[in-house]
Amino acid sequence: MTQPAPRASDLLVVGTVALDDVATPAGEAKAVLGGSATYFSVAASLFTRVGLVGVVGEDFPRPFRGLLAGRDIDLSGLETAPGKTFHWAGRYDGAMNSATTLVTDLNVLARFSPSLPASFRKTPFVFLANTAPSIQSSVLSQLGSPALVVCDTMNLWIDTARDGLLDVMHRVDGLLINDEEARSLAGVRNLVAAGKRLLTMGPKFVIVKKGEHGAFLFAKDRSFALPSYPLDDVRDPTGAGDSFAGGLMGALAASGRTTTNDVVRAMVYGTVTASFAVSTFSLDGLAKVTRSEVEARAEELRRFLSL
Amino acid sequence: MTQPAPRASDLLVVGTVALDDVATPAGEAKAVLGGSATYFSVAASLFTRVGLVGVVGEDFPRPFRGLLAGRDIDLSGLETAPGKTFHWAGRYDGAMNSATTLVTDLNVLARFSPSLPASFRKTPFVFLANTAPSIQSSVLSQLGSPALVVCDTMNLWIDTARDGLLDVMHRVDGLLINDEEARSLAGVRNLVAAGKRLLTMGPKFVIVKKGEHGAFLFAKDRSFALPSYPLDDVRDPTGAGDSFAGGLMGALAASGRTTTNDVVRAMVYGTVTASFAVSTFSLDGLAKVTRSEVEARAEELRRFLSL
Repeated sequence: MTQPAPRASDLLVVGTVALDDVATPAGEAKAVLGGSATYFSVAASLFTRVGLVGVVGEDFPRPFRGLLAGRDIDLSGLETAPGKTFHWAGRYDGAMNSATTLVTDLNVLARFSPSLPASFRKTPFVFLANTAPSIQSSVLSQLGSPALVVCDTMNLWIDTARDGLLDVMHRVDGLLINDEEARSLAGVRNLVAAGKRLLTMGPKFVIVKKGEHGAFLFAKDRSFALPSYPLDDVRDPTGAGDSFAGGLMGALAASGRTTTNDVVRAMVYGTVTASFAVSTFSLDGLAKVTRSEVEARAEELRRFLSL
Repeated sequence: MTQPAPRASDLLVVGTVALDDVATPAGEAKAVLGGSATYFSVAASLFTRVGLVGVVGEDFPRPFRGLLAGRDIDLSGLETAPGKTFHWAGRYDGAMNSATTLVTDLNVLARFSPSLPASFRKTPFVFLANTAPSIQSSVLSQLGSPALVVCDTMNLWIDTARDGLLDVMHRVDGLLINDEEARSLAGVRNLVAAGKRLLTMGPKFVIVKKGEHGAFLFAKDRSFALPSYPLDDVRDPTGAGDSFAGGLMGALAASGRTTTNDVVRAMVYGTVTASFAVSTFSLDGLAKVTRSEVEARAEELRRFLSL
């Protein structure tokens, strides 16, 4: 008897796996599991099987790998490279609306050039987490014809690799971006005007993340606003955006659907997974959540929003 | 033949009538019509007849009185006192999230002690716009048994007349308050926690206004979040909160209903009247809007929010 072939993933993420130091008004945590691909995969694996493409160093703790491997996450695209794992240290103050970055040690990430395993190249749903546009572009060139590709970005690339980013925006279906980045990339102060401007720059839809204020969606056929899940205790906002992306893309990949209204409904799941992520430091909360807890909170959010 | 008695108002507002100087990134306006009762009445009179209680000075321009008198607003409670009209000057910068007050000349407002016309004392819906808690309290004592009383407040009273404000909060049904004031009055940084705390301090519901980020409602039987109407050109945020209150209370008074779900549905109208108010300086925009334009935008907002 031969082994059954591992089940193919519906969803692929290319991003970072990190060791984070985080301090917030609620406490601090050192050398905890972080990174965009990590938060994304843990959130998305509540809905579907995820292929993770990223790199760690030889120091990457075995229990962290175990946490990922113990979920519906395919780690065959997670390289281990000589050197240390990407390290980020940051601090959130006051209302915790934005992080102050204290340390960014790229380490193994500095030479990361993702090569997708053959089994990943036909994945229908793809999320390009925040990395250099050149890396996002290289991944796009390795893909077959995915059903839906969404990318994230950050101010660093808007400022230093704008042309590359503009090129990527023409090759993806959706752009996920936070409010300040949206203003900066669009060159417009008003957020609605910024979102509409970004929609003319390539993607079929743009989701502007506003942290505790929720998210806007702009598409050709409709716009949409979703408040965040009302939390009365936020402990660590790290990974909120990537957990949102994971819930969004996980729900979409599980449904196999890609219309704007499907994206709108999937935003509820992104909001819910983000709400679990920010309730604890690192992935302590999100990694323990069950699918039925997600569904219960999604239903609660829908009731919360009902007119 | 006798004259028909003037139709009684469904809704009463006690607040300020002002002459404003306003500067925003979109331009500036001098000696324009402003004040909480003014914005409120103009918004609410789109829905029902409003009785306005306030005071102006002898300098109050006739065309401004004409603008109010030409609408469904009963001015029999608008006193003219010796002296000058209340004057406010302020500036909005950047994303226009909050005003910097440059001048506050109370003038005739300094000695304002409202005495309600007898015909106003049985009005079923009442809005106590932002004034000293002692004035709000005096108005409450002049009322019969209204169906719904909602009050607003501001940091000045939270800091200088806290006991009076706490007393008023126990005598009203609803509190309307902005996000920073909610945090300050509740003594809690997290806005959801602040809203829930305020709900234990007397009112049956608390609406926290978040400007461009919309509004939260907290009540015993449900919570609700409503994003603001997506505007890509905000010119002057002055009066946004009072226009919101006017649309909210106007819609409630017109319906005669007071359940939490009625308040939720009326928040759509508050959001819409506020959106018209901030699109122009002073009342230039709001005063020209028709009820059918309000309904069209309300329907657009409901579509915008639909999952």
